[in-house]
Amino acid sequence: MDAQSSGDDALKNDSIEFHRKKRGKVETIGKMPVDTVRDLELCYTPGVAYACLEISRDKDLSYDYTNRANSIAIVTDGTRILGLGNIGPEAGMPVMEGKALLLKKFGGVDATPIAVGSTDEQEIIRFIKMLAPSYGAINLEDLETPKAIKVLRALEADLPIPIFHDDSYGTAIVTYAGLKNALRLVGKKIGNVKIVINGAGSAGYGISKLLHFAGARDITCCDREGAIYQGRGSHMNVVKDEIAEYTNSNCVKGSLSELARGADVLIGVSSKGEFTTEMIKGMAERPIVFALANPDPEIDYDEARSAGAEVVATGRSGVPNQVNNMLAFPGVFRGLLDTRSSKMSMEMMIAAGDAISKTVKRSMLTRDYIVPDFNDRKMATKATAAVAVAVAESAMANGVARLKVDPADVRANFLSMVKRYGKLERYVGRLG
Amino acid sequence: MDAQSSGDDALKNDSIEFHRKKRGKVETIGKMPVDTVRDLELCYTPGVAYACLEISRDKDLSYDYTNRANSIAIVTDGTRILGLGNIGPEAGMPVMEGKALLLKKFGGVDATPIAVGSTDEQEIIRFIKMLAPSYGAINLEDLETPKAIKVLRALEADLPIPIFHDDSYGTAIVTYAGLKNALRLVGKKIGNVKIVINGAGSAGYGISKLLHFAGARDITCCDREGAIYQGRGSHMNVVKDEIAEYTNSNCVKGSLSELARGADVLIGVSSKGEFTTEMIKGMAERPIVFALANPDPEIDYDEARSAGAEVVATGRSGVPNQVNNMLAFPGVFRGLLDTRSSKMSMEMMIAAGDAISKTVKRSMLTRDYIVPDFNDRKMATKATAAVAVAVAESAMANGVARLKVDPADVRANFLSMVKRYGKLERYVGRLG
Repeated sequence: MDAQSSGDDALKNDSIEFHRKKRGKVETIGKMPVDTVRDLELCYTPGVAYACLEISRDKDLSYDYTNRANSIAIVTDGTRILGLGNIGPEAGMPVMEGKALLLKKFGGVDATPIAVGSTDEQEIIRFIKMLAPSYGAINLEDLETPKAIKVLRALEADLPIPIFHDDSYGTAIVTYAGLKNALRLVGKKIGNVKIVINGAGSAGYGISKLLHFAGARDITCCDREGAIYQGRGSHMNVVKDEIAEYTNSNCVKGSLSELARGADVLIGVSSKGEFTTEMIKGMAERPIVFALANPDPEIDYDEARSAGAEVVATGRSGVPNQVNNMLAFPGVFRGLLDTRSSKMSMEMMIAAGDAISKTVKRSMLTRDYIVPDFNDRKMATKATAAVAVAVAESAMANGVARLKVDPADVRANFLSMVKRYGKLERYVGRLG
Repeated sequence: MDAQSSGDDALKNDSIEFHRKKRGKVETIGKMPVDTVRDLELCYTPGVAYACLEISRDKDLSYDYTNRANSIAIVTDGTRILGLGNIGPEAGMPVMEGKALLLKKFGGVDATPIAVGSTDEQEIIRFIKMLAPSYGAINLEDLETPKAIKVLRALEADLPIPIFHDDSYGTAIVTYAGLKNALRLVGKKIGNVKIVINGAGSAGYGISKLLHFAGARDITCCDREGAIYQGRGSHMNVVKDEIAEYTNSNCVKGSLSELARGADVLIGVSSKGEFTTEMIKGMAERPIVFALANPDPEIDYDEARSAGAEVVATGRSGVPNQVNNMLAFPGVFRGLLDTRSSKMSMEMMIAAGDAISKTVKRSMLTRDYIVPDFNDRKMATKATAAVAVAVAESAMANGVARLKVDPADVRANFLSMVKRYGKLERYVGRLG
């Protein structure tokens, strides 16, 4: 993100003021009042020892006697904060705190923001493994690629709790949801369309992998060197190597402009200005363009529409079709935690994406409304509840759920948590 | 702690119920309401990027734009939870959560409870170093000795933020405070008394070191093998080696019973039943006995008094003179955070202890009131405010404070935080 050039001085001033006013955005509080000597004895010594002893006999009781069942850690190393690059852990913290606040507000989840003081892959893996006994799930956030994916893979193999990498999985879920609805609008099937993805970082990897899993058979990913294909000698890494295995089976070469010619779907997870009107004009009939770079898209919504794109989505609010990760991650964690799942599978991501796309009812679906508008609180709540339920159901169906739950309870639990937090938030606002 | 034999079934049932009711004791909330689209833009993308960029230019701004200035991590490895021993990280979590709640309630501090999944000394050191960019201070808790002290020393040497080891430092501060008042009552001076400490774990180490620093010249520490002295061949470790350097300069040998003979002060940080009436009867005139084992003291308060002890303190509530770490740690962290101190020094511990002892005014000081009663909320608040101010003043005087603050502001800040939390806590209680 080129925040300097986005030129929004008001946003800058408001942001600094917003962050400075309360010195950050999250705090830790007790779940209950502790008033009497007896309360103190139960909360801490000597009474607390009984809860400890019970858990020492059965570790799973940590989900009953501590906040673990509702706790996640959000972990970054500060190497790829938003589009700002490697700005260090301290500077990454405002994003992690923001995410923690949003997880509570929109998912009822208690999240600990942690920005670690090491950029070493093995150290980060070990650090997160050491965190695991304290949490019900992990959110990996804003690490540079390919390290992010290597850390993710290592932890998916070993962690007893689920790890969710929002930059790849979250973006992939919402992109898949939006694309599903867009394809319905233009009357094309995912198995038949030519998809070009510009950007082969965490998002490009996550999106290409999920769309492939969803049945897409003609995907080509592209980086600054052009098309990614098996055997390309230069500027490859383990993530691009993996991308090359399931995409571009004909080993097509060429630049983004060349690849875009005749494509049905063009997805950008790269940076501002990477898409041109010429590219869109050269696409297949009724082209779909997702220009998801943040905060400034690869091409502006209006410009893409003028160039002939049938459906355009961006990461921005203020124009239609905001592909917003918030549609996914609060509900995903709610579903993971409520079922005590051990991992996040591709099936669960598809279930989450389907839930988001279905939240846009047939009657609402237009080229300017392919994903629920997260800024419409009712739609956001509907979508999140649907995602939580879908993830829970899929987790149970796929054997990764350690708790069997009634989907109606997941929904009710979510709604009551969000309602409670709404009240708490208003009280905190009054309290100052 | 032999919680099983303490026989308090009611306490056990209440504790399990207390912990199960809300699934643990702490939660994370936002410091402000997030209502409008603008709020979302400031809290998260795109607005948050401006706060990130500012911090990337000056890491110290993390204390202004994130919650770092008020955040600490409480870290254990589960190897010495209370007196329960090595029960694992999951089972240690109820204690860490309890401590987090108390830190907020009594000190206004936001604490993250973390129980790590490794008992390896080097891994724990590295883990805590990696945590440092996210926090303003670290509380090390309930690690087995000598590992705890080795971790503490390594981190004190390297960490840019202060680390406080409550099991040694906290206990030492309150013990020193109580002993100071007890000595005043019996008309003896710390430089002239014979002190015997039973127990050479974290607490015995911390207490002996602080009393030595405070001017005590005749301290002998004792473990199950008897007196600790330089050159003792068996059952030594790096902590006992260090203890032997500044205590027992005459290399006295013998059992606890033998050592206690003629002692002015007998301090137990060991376990139930280790002190006998015979030992106390053989002590010097007007003997002082601190039987601090938890939850059951080395000798009961009444029994020690009957045996002739002039002043008796224990770790228990319900009898006079509870040596309670809560008198120290909330105020210590408040003072450390408010001054952005880089470490906790011996001078600062003495200052904290002096503040606690002075909270008991001359007119209140009796053999049954040598330390403020933490269960008397007014006294607790007075003591904590005094500790916060004393630590802040000492930090500034000793050159470890990175911020200059007005002590009156430290007090006012503390009082306003505690008042605010009191309201919030009542609201959370009503909310359910």
